[in-house]
Amino acid sequence: MRERRVRSYAIIGAGALGGWYGARLHHAGCSVHFLLHSDYAQVTRNGLRVESPCGEFSVRAPQAYQRPQDMPACDVALVGLKTTQNHLLPQLLPPVVRRDGCVLVMQNGLGVEELAAAAVNRCVQVLGGMAFLCSHKVGPGHIRHMDYGDVRLGHYSPDGRPAGLTRHVQQVAEDFTRAGVTVHVEEDLVLARWKKLVWNVPYNGLSVVLNATTDKLMADQDTRALCEALMLEVVEGAAAFGRAISRDFVQLMLANTEQMVAYKPSMMLDWEQGRPMEIEAIHGNPLRAAAGRGIVLPRLSMLYQQLRFLSARVRCSA
Amino acid sequence: MRERRVRSYAIIGAGALGGWYGARLHHAGCSVHFLLHSDYAQVTRNGLRVESPCGEFSVRAPQAYQRPQDMPACDVALVGLKTTQNHLLPQLLPPVVRRDGCVLVMQNGLGVEELAAAAVNRCVQVLGGMAFLCSHKVGPGHIRHMDYGDVRLGHYSPDGRPAGLTRHVQQVAEDFTRAGVTVHVEEDLVLARWKKLVWNVPYNGLSVVLNATTDKLMADQDTRALCEALMLEVVEGAAAFGRAISRDFVQLMLANTEQMVAYKPSMMLDWEQGRPMEIEAIHGNPLRAAAGRGIVLPRLSMLYQQLRFLSARVRCSA
Repeated sequence: MRERRVRSYAIIGAGALGGWYGARLHHAGCSVHFLLHSDYAQVTRNGLRVESPCGEFSVRAPQAYQRPQDMPACDVALVGLKTTQNHLLPQLLPPVVRRDGCVLVMQNGLGVEELAAAAVNRCVQVLGGMAFLCSHKVGPGHIRHMDYGDVRLGHYSPDGRPAGLTRHVQQVAEDFTRAGVTVHVEEDLVLARWKKLVWNVPYNGLSVVLNATTDKLMADQDTRALCEALMLEVVEGAAAFGRAISRDFVQLMLANTEQMVAYKPSMMLDWEQGRPMEIEAIHGNPLRAAAGRGIVLPRLSMLYQQLRFLSARVRCSA
Repeated sequence: MRERRVRSYAIIGAGALGGWYGARLHHAGCSVHFLLHSDYAQVTRNGLRVESPCGEFSVRAPQAYQRPQDMPACDVALVGLKTTQNHLLPQLLPPVVRRDGCVLVMQNGLGVEELAAAAVNRCVQVLGGMAFLCSHKVGPGHIRHMDYGDVRLGHYSPDGRPAGLTRHVQQVAEDFTRAGVTVHVEEDLVLARWKKLVWNVPYNGLSVVLNATTDKLMADQDTRALCEALMLEVVEGAAAFGRAISRDFVQLMLANTEQMVAYKPSMMLDWEQGRPMEIEAIHGNPLRAAAGRGIVLPRLSMLYQQLRFLSARVRCSA
């Protein structure tokens, strides 16, 4: 058995998501470097505090940086920013990832790997990660993990074809598994992304427009039917890219959501707290992708327009 | 020149609309009978107070009734109720209209004449009226007219074919004109109803869902485009009934609304004041009518579902 090389991770955006996975990877023996913005002073002074029902995952003296130029080039750059900050990727990514390394984009929505790929050298591989995670930042450098944390991982290929189980995916999956994270490896990242949208499109969007948690949306016959109709439009979008999502999967998403307690999707939390919403990644990009293949998705289009209106109004009145 | 017979009107629902037109018809010499509910005591004591920038139209000693059975059978029964009260028509209408008289349904939406026709004797004719009116009730038996008041009138035919300019329409138009109301006679009521929906569907619905006056909806590119898309779905619905509404008409509605000052559609006022909204007449009926001809209108369907959700939530929490 050959000796395992310790892989290095650059965590871009050490918030509720990046902070949680970064802390877990650190405790699993990876060399983890945190890029911090507003929390830098707090974290260098007092460390990164990470609480969880699974135990304490704080990092007492993290390798923390204010500028990407000061960071070492790592094997993996984990993008834990919200998609609304993706315009920063061309500045943030190049210095922190090795020429033969990879970027792991752990974000919501569609088209997010494209942006990362455009920001880095062509030799750098890009992976997509989808986290099913409940955690939030309770203060500067202070993260509270509530529940879950499974990750779906897949390799991005610029031509859109399924990339299969690549070496990079296997290595990252190995590190996450060692860190106690349940990993599902996806051979077809495009399919996995569209499947995630089946849930994200209706619940994130309608929770904001109708100011309602998931239980309210499911208890009402009209909005339940609307969630299903929106899901079927996402299925139609996926089909335009040759990805089949079954009706059973749609029914499963509905049934699962019905079983959940009152849940506020991330977009509703962003909306309530006056943060920018991930409208382009979750609604705009699938809409445009489908339109590019000649497919009109009228309900998704309407939801997108309603969300943009609400978002613009907040910015105007701010 | 033969002598003109004074025609009698039963005003069913003497609110902001019925009270205003009833008072004007009274001052024009018609015999007007007001059916009142909660305002009966006030009106019999102090009369019906009607203010307007055009002058004072109060009725000092109106012929007021609490029960339809106590009213004379009139030439015209003017329905001034909100469509949300149309379940009362079978009780209210039969006693108040002559066998050779007519019902004038002055309401929003689609399918409202059908309900009136089903409530009365087959000999009774049914007319549809669409008022472009700004007035409101400021207190019991006290109506304030703000602006406008034009009426579009057309004859309802059960088979849906254009009824043309019938005697009943001409007589009612004559009375309204004598009362100083500008009347547009419509040879095709179905077409007129769908044309009115071109405006009513987007602005009434979106003003509630997005909590926005018309100026806000028009100033934003996304909601302006959504208003247009909804209008085009209404045009599609009309086409399913053989009624052609031109693209120019849609552009005219958009341009006119852009010129208006901040305006709260009636549904927004109902919503803000906790009153039932006319969702079924304005959104549900055209949706079902189109569905009956095999036409799916996805944005209108989504708007309807959103409005029903909001409406049900209020009722639950009340």
